[in-house]
Amino acid sequence: MFCYFERLESSEFMNLYFDHAATTKVCDEALTAIENAALVTYGNPSSMHYIGMKAEDLVEEARKFMSRQLFVSDKEIYFTSGGTESNNLAVQGVAKAYIRDGKHIITTKIEHPSVGSTFKQLEDEGFDVTYIDVDSKGYVNLEQLEESIRKDTTLVSIMQVNNEIGCIQNLEAIGTLIKSVNSRTLLHVDGVQGFMKLPISIKRAKIDLYSASSHKIYGPKGSGLLYIKQGTKIRPLQFGGSQQKGIRPGTENVPGIAGFYKAAESISKDMKDNYIKVLALKEYFLENLALKLPKWGSHSIPSNGNYESEISSPYIINFRTISIKGEVVLHALEDYKISVSTGSACSSKKLNISHVLKALNLEDVESDRAVRISFSHHQTKEDIDELFRALIEIDAMFGKFIKR
Amino acid sequence: MFCYFERLESSEFMNLYFDHAATTKVCDEALTAIENAALVTYGNPSSMHYIGMKAEDLVEEARKFMSRQLFVSDKEIYFTSGGTESNNLAVQGVAKAYIRDGKHIITTKIEHPSVGSTFKQLEDEGFDVTYIDVDSKGYVNLEQLEESIRKDTTLVSIMQVNNEIGCIQNLEAIGTLIKSVNSRTLLHVDGVQGFMKLPISIKRAKIDLYSASSHKIYGPKGSGLLYIKQGTKIRPLQFGGSQQKGIRPGTENVPGIAGFYKAAESISKDMKDNYIKVLALKEYFLENLALKLPKWGSHSIPSNGNYESEISSPYIINFRTISIKGEVVLHALEDYKISVSTGSACSSKKLNISHVLKALNLEDVESDRAVRISFSHHQTKEDIDELFRALIEIDAMFGKFIKR
Repeated sequence: MFCYFERLESSEFMNLYFDHAATTKVCDEALTAIENAALVTYGNPSSMHYIGMKAEDLVEEARKFMSRQLFVSDKEIYFTSGGTESNNLAVQGVAKAYIRDGKHIITTKIEHPSVGSTFKQLEDEGFDVTYIDVDSKGYVNLEQLEESIRKDTTLVSIMQVNNEIGCIQNLEAIGTLIKSVNSRTLLHVDGVQGFMKLPISIKRAKIDLYSASSHKIYGPKGSGLLYIKQGTKIRPLQFGGSQQKGIRPGTENVPGIAGFYKAAESISKDMKDNYIKVLALKEYFLENLALKLPKWGSHSIPSNGNYESEISSPYIINFRTISIKGEVVLHALEDYKISVSTGSACSSKKLNISHVLKALNLEDVESDRAVRISFSHHQTKEDIDELFRALIEIDAMFGKFIKR
Repeated sequence: MFCYFERLESSEFMNLYFDHAATTKVCDEALTAIENAALVTYGNPSSMHYIGMKAEDLVEEARKFMSRQLFVSDKEIYFTSGGTESNNLAVQGVAKAYIRDGKHIITTKIEHPSVGSTFKQLEDEGFDVTYIDVDSKGYVNLEQLEESIRKDTTLVSIMQVNNEIGCIQNLEAIGTLIKSVNSRTLLHVDGVQGFMKLPISIKRAKIDLYSASSHKIYGPKGSGLLYIKQGTKIRPLQFGGSQQKGIRPGTENVPGIAGFYKAAESISKDMKDNYIKVLALKEYFLENLALKLPKWGSHSIPSNGNYESEISSPYIINFRTISIKGEVVLHALEDYKISVSTGSACSSKKLNISHVLKALNLEDVESDRAVRISFSHHQTKEDIDELFRALIEIDAMFGKFIKR
């Protein structure tokens, strides 16, 4: 491991980063906001004096901005320490606040661990959990969902965009379906991979809670938000001061909130342009895959998710090699100073088989050969050309040693 | 409110900040670390590639540094989103993990709301809570503590330094006492106002869990740590990825952790010098109070806490006027561009009577006249001279209108 670092240390730093679904570099606008909050607006928003009030103003300005992005009220936005906390606050918070109405809660088999593990925990604590199947492309089985909703179902949690394969759920159909079966069942949406990248209609999809994270959109880590529809009861995860109506106490992370706000503001203007740019990248990637590595391509499509626009995010592609382990591709690409992923960063260290690919009915040996590419709107076709130069060499180098 | 801001906006920014117990300005070392983590070491520590590993290295370097400050193992340090989360993770985490051993937990009447409200919540959930009294100077009644510990007492939570009045608890006596009565009772210490300011011996005080916060020591907000002695069971507040052994999942706040680390490192070298410097400031303040506002002085000492060194923090002074409300002093001082507090920032917005001063047996009308000053080692005697020039004018201006 030491030699490995030595080698890389001596070379230039990585220059091609295809892992934006794991995290992003902080943008200039966010960094300036962080610096200002650290040095100028450094007060405690709960302090009664001027320096405190200036910090409070900044937090409230950020809250208003975020609320406008979701077309909701600023009273419905709560800042958290990130996506994991937002998802936990939503899922645990609702399940426990409505425990007298029922102990049945529903989620899918392809959620991020911060939702999936929270449901498992609640199951251990005595909640009755239904895990909805998805089809071979990752879409929620609506019939099964409809049949699963009961009188005592208090919560359904379904992600907007899957972090491994990029499928976009039809949230308007899902929300309408849920409310038509049980108008009191609440819908939480993990929007971490969708926020500021894809349009979302909180109102039309009848969403009661929506999670977002800063560091997926060029803001700092340690910052996120949760939309909670007014009137929704929630049991806090933490208790303390009266900040954020006691729903999320603790001194507000002013630099983190300011950085999140300015990062969101800076991409909000170009959300559609960014989408078009990244969609062109995705299409170019797929053309290359079909042309230059046709066996990999025919293997991947459509079984590792879906590549159709509108129902899949252009930001995420999951493909698989014909014979090489994803992990081998990942490490081989490092010699080319290219960063990719084999799936969710959050569980990648465990080297487990992806629960998402498993839910698509892929065999373990197939899942093991998955590689995830996730784009930024700053990237170009030339970056993809370089990626393919590397992938072709890797296929030639490793492919021949491995029994197909 | 608008006019109020207008007036201040047009004047120079505040230049005398006596509210360091509420929060601090981020130091240069921390800011540089934050910038590096945002732009260079921006990877996700859970990613398997080089950029991720560099971020992980930084987090582990920070963890090692923090562990050395507390003379514990780096395996015992968990990074959190701040003091409130650390306190909640410790208190809820232990109470729930040891529920089979007992449902009796103990704390004091002068804890920070992030401990106090968490105990109240656990009480609502069916835990049996004992709230220990303090004497007129804020020290825990050891006899009462001894009598309170039972076979089914799983946790005692006592703060190192009180955030409103600065009293330092005798943790070695407390820890020894607790373990002598019930060796299985765990001790959590909220060290938010003590960490990197006062010496602490985790081992000698037999502390099982210890909380600290970044933004009280010139690091960024949204970052904190919890020491958890190896072998201690803890129920996480959040569930998700496998980060930090699942005790605190979620992508690590790398810039927040790096900033916390570098802020701590920068003051660690001068901890003793800073203490001596600030102690001189405190003594100079008290001399001035006795000399220039003798009626305020005789009123305050010793009833608003304790001013003796070794058993009280030099960083915090709580005094009271003879007739003017603390809130009036706070706002009047803003015209002099001086920031002070009336107590804890976390509850100051509620304008409640301080639960800490109430525990010292002060009447509400007396508590209402409390002012908290909290120092930084960057401050000088000249700053205190300026503060007194302002306080004397305020006393002359407001004092005469108010019936004494």
